[in-house]
Amino acid sequence: MKKRILSGMRPTGKLHLGHLMGALNNWVKLQDEYLCFYMIADWHALMSEYEDPKNLKESCYEMVRDFVACGLDPEKSVIFVQSHVPEHLELAMIFSDITPLAWVERVPTYKEQLREVKGRDLTTYGFLGYPVLQAADIAVYRANAVPVGVDQVPHLELTREIVRRFNGLYKTGLFPEPDAILTKTSKLLGLDNRKMSKSYNNFILLSDTPDAIRKKVSVMITDAERIKLRDRGHPDICNVFSYYAGFAKPDHAPKVRGWCEGASKGCTECKKALAEIVIESLEPIRARRAKMSDDEVEDIIRKGAKKARDAASETMREVKKLINFLQ
Amino acid sequence: MKKRILSGMRPTGKLHLGHLMGALNNWVKLQDEYLCFYMIADWHALMSEYEDPKNLKESCYEMVRDFVACGLDPEKSVIFVQSHVPEHLELAMIFSDITPLAWVERVPTYKEQLREVKGRDLTTYGFLGYPVLQAADIAVYRANAVPVGVDQVPHLELTREIVRRFNGLYKTGLFPEPDAILTKTSKLLGLDNRKMSKSYNNFILLSDTPDAIRKKVSVMITDAERIKLRDRGHPDICNVFSYYAGFAKPDHAPKVRGWCEGASKGCTECKKALAEIVIESLEPIRARRAKMSDDEVEDIIRKGAKKARDAASETMREVKKLINFLQ
Repeated sequence: MKKRILSGMRPTGKLHLGHLMGALNNWVKLQDEYLCFYMIADWHALMSEYEDPKNLKESCYEMVRDFVACGLDPEKSVIFVQSHVPEHLELAMIFSDITPLAWVERVPTYKEQLREVKGRDLTTYGFLGYPVLQAADIAVYRANAVPVGVDQVPHLELTREIVRRFNGLYKTGLFPEPDAILTKTSKLLGLDNRKMSKSYNNFILLSDTPDAIRKKVSVMITDAERIKLRDRGHPDICNVFSYYAGFAKPDHAPKVRGWCEGASKGCTECKKALAEIVIESLEPIRARRAKMSDDEVEDIIRKGAKKARDAASETMREVKKLINFLQ
Repeated sequence: MKKRILSGMRPTGKLHLGHLMGALNNWVKLQDEYLCFYMIADWHALMSEYEDPKNLKESCYEMVRDFVACGLDPEKSVIFVQSHVPEHLELAMIFSDITPLAWVERVPTYKEQLREVKGRDLTTYGFLGYPVLQAADIAVYRANAVPVGVDQVPHLELTREIVRRFNGLYKTGLFPEPDAILTKTSKLLGLDNRKMSKSYNNFILLSDTPDAIRKKVSVMITDAERIKLRDRGHPDICNVFSYYAGFAKPDHAPKVRGWCEGASKGCTECKKALAEIVIESLEPIRARRAKMSDDEVEDIIRKGAKKARDAASETMREVKKLINFLQ
C-alpha cells in the first residue's frame, strides 16, 4: 500500500506564485509516490477570517481550480474541503483532551502570528488550538509524511508528540508519527523582497492576466547596488534573477547572469523579458483553469469529500473503539 | 412552537440520589412545557476520563436506563448521546474562533475544578474549552432556557456572551440568549454531609439494591450535637432529616421532627425507618429499569440521535450560510 501524505492550504484568496513554487509544484511530484490528501482548510481559514468571512466559499472554489490547473490530479489525489469531513473535529476534540495546555502555548509560530498578523484579533481560544487541529488533520488519515516548510517543523513536532501520547495512553500503534518532507524548491520572494503574501500585497496570482503580470513585474525591486545602467549587477542577490531561476528554461539563467554582470541590459529591460517568461510559464495553468466548468469543480469537491470521509471514518471507528465511545 | 431546553449529564457512572433530586425530577416536570433535549455528554466526560475511559460506553447505556426509569419520556423529549451529533463540535469550533482566551480563562469553575478534581490532570487544552463546548451544546438547538444549579450560572453567562458575539459579528438573531431556569429542588447532600458525588463515594445509586441502601443509610452522619439517645435533636441541621423531607410523604416530616426534637427515637432507629422510605420511593424507578430491554435502550439512542441531528443540522445550515462556508 502506498504511504500517505496530508497537506493543505487555507482558502483565504486566490493562489499566487509563492504557493506554486513553495508547495504546489512539489505536491504535484508527490502524487505518484504517495496517496495524497490535499485539504482546503476552511476551519483554519475561519480562525483568522472570522470577523469577515465573506470570501470563504468563493476561495474554496478558486482553490480547487488552482490546484487542478497546477497539476493536482483528482483521480490520483484526494482534493477536499476540510469542513466536509466532520471527523477532523472529532479527532481534534480527542487530541485537545490529551494535549497539555503548555504544549500549545509554547508553539513558536503561535506567538509569532499574534505579533505578525495585523488587523486581526487572534487571541482566541480557537486560534490557540490551531496546532491541535493540524495534528488531527494529519492523523485522521494516518498520514506517514507531511510536506512542510522549515517554519512548520515545530508544528509537526507537536503532532508527533500528540500522536505518541495517544498511542501511549490507549496502548495502540494506530497512528504513525508523521515525518517531514522538507520542500526543496526555493522560496520565491514577493515583488518587494519580503515573503510573498496576500497581506503584503506583493504577489503575482496564478490567475493574473498577462497585462497584470507585466505591470507587477515592472515594479519589482532589483539589485539595490546597481544604480545606473552601466553599473555591474549582482544577480545572486537580485530577486528578479531568482525569478529567472524559477521560471526560465535552465539554459536561460546563465545568459541573464551575463547581461546583468556585464551591465549590457538595464533592469527595466530585464524585467520586461522576465514578465514574458512568467506569462509563458503560467499559460498552461491559465488555459487549464479556463477549461474547467463549474460542474467539474463541484464534482471534484463532492467526490473528494466522499473519498476523504471514507478514509477518515475508518480511522475514527478505530479511535472510538479505543476510547470506548458508544458508536 | 414550544420553547426549547437543553440539559445534560456526563456519563461517568450510574446516577445517584443527588442527580434525581438536583436535576432529574425537575427535568421530568419540564417535559410538558418545553421541547427538551437531554444530552448524555460523552465529549465532556472524555475531558476528565481520557486517561481511563473504559466505562464510557456502559455508562451511556446505564444513563439512558436511569433517565427513562426516572420519568424522562423518549416520545416527548429528545434523549441522545452528544457524540452522535457531530454538529456540536462544528459549532464549538466556530465559537472557539470568536471567543477571546481571556473569557474562558476567567470562568470560575475552571480554576475550581483544577483544584478540586484529584487524581486527574485537567490542565489540557480541551478542558479549558469546556464552557465553549457547553455554549455550542445549548446553541446548536437554539435552546431558550437551561435548567441549572447556581454554580453553573457563570457558565451560562459565558454562553450568553458567546451567542451575543456571534449574533453581533454576523448580524443575525439566529441564537436566542438562553435563560437560566434555577432548579428549585434542594440539593441533597451525600452520606457524609458533603456534596453527593461519585468521587467522594458518599452516594446512594438509583439502581442500588434495598440491602445496599439500608447499609448506606445506616452510616449517614446525623446531628453532631445529639450525642446520647435522650439528647434532643435538631432536625433542621440534620442531613437525615433533609432526606425525609425529600423522600417521605409530606405529612411524615412533622412526625420525624417530633420524635427527633422530643428525643423519643434514636438516630439508628430513625435511619432504619428512612432506609425503608428511600427504598419504597425508588421502587418504581427500579421496577421500570428492570423492565427495559437492551433493544429498547438501543432504540431510544438511535431515535434520539436522529431527532437531535435533524434539529442541530438545521441550525448548522443557517450558521454555515452566515460564515460563508461551502456546504
